[in-house]
Amino acid sequence: MNKYQQRIEQLREVMSRNHYDAVIIAGTDPHKSEYFAPRWKGIEWLTGFTGEAGDVAVTADHIGLWTDSRYYIQAGQELAGSGVQLHKSGQGDIGAIPAWLAEHFAGRDAIRVATCGECQSVTFVRILRDALHAAFRNEDSEIILSGDILDNIWEDRPLVPYTDIIALDEEEVGRTRQSKIDWLRGFIASQPGCNAILLSSLDQIAWTLNVRGSDIDYNPYVISYLLVTADRVLWFVSKGEVDDDSETADTFALLSSQGIDILPYESIYPEIYTYGEGRPGGKVFVDLDTLNAQVYETLCDALGEENVLSGSSPVILEKACKNPKEIEGFRNAFFEDGIAVERFLYWLETALAAGESVTEQQAALHLTSLRAEIEGYRGDSFGTISAWGPAAALPHYSSPVENSPLIRRRGLYLVDSGGQYFYGTTDITRTVPVGELTMLEKEDYTLVLKAMINLSLAVFPEGTPGSQLDALARIHLWRTRRNYGHGTGHGVGFLSGVHEGPQSIRPTNHVPLRAGMVTSNEPGMYREGLHGIRHENIVLCVKDSSNEFGDWLRFDTLTCCHFDTSAVLKELLSPEEIKWLNDYNESVYQRLAPRIEACGGPQMKAWLRSKTLPL
Amino acid sequence: MNKYQQRIEQLREVMSRNHYDAVIIAGTDPHKSEYFAPRWKGIEWLTGFTGEAGDVAVTADHIGLWTDSRYYIQAGQELAGSGVQLHKSGQGDIGAIPAWLAEHFAGRDAIRVATCGECQSVTFVRILRDALHAAFRNEDSEIILSGDILDNIWEDRPLVPYTDIIALDEEEVGRTRQSKIDWLRGFIASQPGCNAILLSSLDQIAWTLNVRGSDIDYNPYVISYLLVTADRVLWFVSKGEVDDDSETADTFALLSSQGIDILPYESIYPEIYTYGEGRPGGKVFVDLDTLNAQVYETLCDALGEENVLSGSSPVILEKACKNPKEIEGFRNAFFEDGIAVERFLYWLETALAAGESVTEQQAALHLTSLRAEIEGYRGDSFGTISAWGPAAALPHYSSPVENSPLIRRRGLYLVDSGGQYFYGTTDITRTVPVGELTMLEKEDYTLVLKAMINLSLAVFPEGTPGSQLDALARIHLWRTRRNYGHGTGHGVGFLSGVHEGPQSIRPTNHVPLRAGMVTSNEPGMYREGLHGIRHENIVLCVKDSSNEFGDWLRFDTLTCCHFDTSAVLKELLSPEEIKWLNDYNESVYQRLAPRIEACGGPQMKAWLRSKTLPL
Repeated sequence: MNKYQQRIEQLREVMSRNHYDAVIIAGTDPHKSEYFAPRWKGIEWLTGFTGEAGDVAVTADHIGLWTDSRYYIQAGQELAGSGVQLHKSGQGDIGAIPAWLAEHFAGRDAIRVATCGECQSVTFVRILRDALHAAFRNEDSEIILSGDILDNIWEDRPLVPYTDIIALDEEEVGRTRQSKIDWLRGFIASQPGCNAILLSSLDQIAWTLNVRGSDIDYNPYVISYLLVTADRVLWFVSKGEVDDDSETADTFALLSSQGIDILPYESIYPEIYTYGEGRPGGKVFVDLDTLNAQVYETLCDALGEENVLSGSSPVILEKACKNPKEIEGFRNAFFEDGIAVERFLYWLETALAAGESVTEQQAALHLTSLRAEIEGYRGDSFGTISAWGPAAALPHYSSPVENSPLIRRRGLYLVDSGGQYFYGTTDITRTVPVGELTMLEKEDYTLVLKAMINLSLAVFPEGTPGSQLDALARIHLWRTRRNYGHGTGHGVGFLSGVHEGPQSIRPTNHVPLRAGMVTSNEPGMYREGLHGIRHENIVLCVKDSSNEFGDWLRFDTLTCCHFDTSAVLKELLSPEEIKWLNDYNESVYQRLAPRIEACGGPQMKAWLRSKTLPL
Repeated sequence: MNKYQQRIEQLREVMSRNHYDAVIIAGTDPHKSEYFAPRWKGIEWLTGFTGEAGDVAVTADHIGLWTDSRYYIQAGQELAGSGVQLHKSGQGDIGAIPAWLAEHFAGRDAIRVATCGECQSVTFVRILRDALHAAFRNEDSEIILSGDILDNIWEDRPLVPYTDIIALDEEEVGRTRQSKIDWLRGFIASQPGCNAILLSSLDQIAWTLNVRGSDIDYNPYVISYLLVTADRVLWFVSKGEVDDDSETADTFALLSSQGIDILPYESIYPEIYTYGEGRPGGKVFVDLDTLNAQVYETLCDALGEENVLSGSSPVILEKACKNPKEIEGFRNAFFEDGIAVERFLYWLETALAAGESVTEQQAALHLTSLRAEIEGYRGDSFGTISAWGPAAALPHYSSPVENSPLIRRRGLYLVDSGGQYFYGTTDITRTVPVGELTMLEKEDYTLVLKAMINLSLAVFPEGTPGSQLDALARIHLWRTRRNYGHGTGHGVGFLSGVHEGPQSIRPTNHVPLRAGMVTSNEPGMYREGLHGIRHENIVLCVKDSSNEFGDWLRFDTLTCCHFDTSAVLKELLSPEEIKWLNDYNESVYQRLAPRIEACGGPQMKAWLRSKTLPL
């Protein structure tokens, strides 16, 4: 028995003692975070699977991992020998495990299923309940929202993390926390019978309170809940003793002085009851897409289900429309980030030309080290994808730390990376042509660029959603029967998650784009066994003009880093597309050359000049 | 008092006798038809308004017409002197009258509103009920689903029309009625607990039974209801004595011999009760978007509300995907129709060149007369729009029969028309440049053509909805801050309505396109006081190919009639767009020239040659 098999056996003993027929373990934290702290990486601890999305179900005779196509290969490798079976499901298909349980226990009268209520959304628990009721004749089927079942068997389990918390002020983020709280109170007042809102999404709490922490990799959040009522603000956050000299102590003092009550993280549960008893009547607004079932059940217990009002959190849209200060910060961040990426590209080209061996992993580390030199850098905004050749065709490829492959001297190398800075968040993908390319590589490279350029050139009326814009990029691949399996763009947060809503540029997103929204523009092409290509800029949606036909919006590109034109088949681009490319590369040169020269001398400046000459 | 004022007074007397606070008159028939018979043109009879969309509400002290922006100008003119007030509402905004009633009677405890249950959808009645309950404290507010209130005061009101009914066979429509009924029974069996479907949409009934009539202008339908159960087919249709020698008698005999019960139209109500008593249990499937409230209430009465299952009718999608026989018919129809339109364009150009006076109305009549020469012609598929200059910028412009304006010798003339043939339905718009044009006219003309061409050139994966394709046309106008206020394309029926669902190419339609769907491609540009431009072809969605990236679809253009290139600014088109245009015009010449020569001699052939020379 390896360690995973031992752990699974221990879990089954707990199940047996508690008469659980099945246990479901969710691949997220109590805040439905995209990235989450080691404390909640129970799936990795139990099975060895390290992918970012997946859920596990355990019965007496079966253990399965449900994950989507992005992780099939990785799961196959990591689960080998653990006895865990891979179940292939669709992305976001939260009904798969309930359906499987219904079938697995077909013939039984009733079953008892346990899951940690803190790590499951209300929506999932409802689907599970419906599935059990539909499948079993007997009403005795039960869903037990247990505490975290792994807690008793996971030795040395990491605690809820607790890092320094900083407070940002208006000078940095363009808006005071008081103004955001006032705005939230306006929202509360607009909801019939409502007198409070409970936020559980970490990005929304960080935005509302103008605070940041490092509790989670890549996302500068503070693990907490926030309850805003008509006359109080309760932040459930502290997770231990606060050192008087720490930044956290200063932040807490500042927020307290502004009337914000700071309470222990776990005290959300008793405080909900206290609030329920003392409140003047009225409902609490919550967002069921992100609220966990444990907190929801507590709210319903304390206030009555009829007093829990659900809907989409208003913070999502408000936060997505960046204010002038945030936009200024973004421009600065993309300028600094562009210098780091140009320095990286120069270093890589020079090293390869000199015959040096560079692994994918070394390249990724070097890029991080260049970003780390930037003032205000707080870490990367996600794990760098550094992939040569066929590896770049694997979605969510992560180059192995040990025995990382070399970047070869011919083909395409893809690097997708980003940084968190005090003044903004970045995300950029460049595909680097190395040596002689095949015609197919050049065609794919050029058509993806054509798609990216056409989205950059788009002008559209207010009210246009990402679902319409998506086709403006994709059509340039469709015309030659090519396509890519991901969205064309995602929202980007300000010193926040590199993926944020509500807008995105994909066929299924019908949220209209608005001025101030920051979104990626990243078409791609992936050929199994051959190569992967992605060209990614970040664009800001801005007001263009108004006339008799409407109010017009367009994109302003924030990213400042050249596109390599050596792989471009000029005949596949229109004169207008070529002009965009030449103008863009020229503007990159004009903006970056002085700083590039200052840090890399005339040689690096000459290199950038040669890279940005017109096609 | 003019006749309208007199009628309104008569209606108010009826209202007073019945203690109705308000009466709502719907602008449709019991089948929610787009076009409907004179019997249901109660709004025109009462107010003089002849627009195709609008509803009327009458109280003791107010009468208002609610219609959308397409009809503001027309309503303003036609309602002058009638005392009817125009209320501007959005297209399809069925909540406007309920909201107005709530406000108009604010302060009252309760009100009584009457409306003809046969001409209101279930959805509308629900919205009205909710609005009244929300607005008035007292539960006594009542909605009376009266019979048609106008019936008692409308002298010489037209009867339910009753025209010859023809039966089409497999040879003509590619599929037997038995196969369609079997398919419907398969659908019924797939719905939980269901054992019947009630169809009330006239296009769906005509398709299912392979029958056609002339009960309605432009749409070759038979006014009827159809109930298909697991073992019976009941067609509620006959509206009087059937002449033994008539085609209707033959059709009825044929259908009866195939086991279809033919019952009087009005007997739907008693038969529903009979069916409710005799049925073996089980639910009836209905589509609430088109079912009228009277029939629905009767069903609920007879079967119990829990036995009325609602959803989108399966016939809509099945009917939209044309079979090979229908496609062959369409190709033939567009070929013949193209000849008629080319003959028309030649006639118009020659007449104007010869200094003859041609009014918009004369031109429309001439075009209809040319279509009427085609074998299998059954009438126009909608009222021809024949509009010169600024008039073409008015949506849904209908040239006045008396004092119709002349087509002038400079500017743009727009003609949008179509025919119904036994083997297909057509719809085409051409914009004809006359004399010297302004630069703005040429720019608009060219950019709309560019939009039309780009949609024609689209290749897209299965699953792509019209909402995505719409932007592929529109972007070419957006880029110069131009736009049009209508969808880019609508579905086209086969010897059926020229507008049909479920697909359309507009920002809000998320139904994926499928092979076999026939859709218009008609971007436009409208400048108030100046000109209106629309270029419309009809395209068939066809399978293109399959590869590792998916199954591909594209469009095959059915319309066969040249685009005038004299107004094209070549520099606004890409080489590929120019190639499409040249190839298209050349193919029109190659296909039509022999027949054009046969009917119009070498002169007309030479003209067509000159019109189709490459740009």
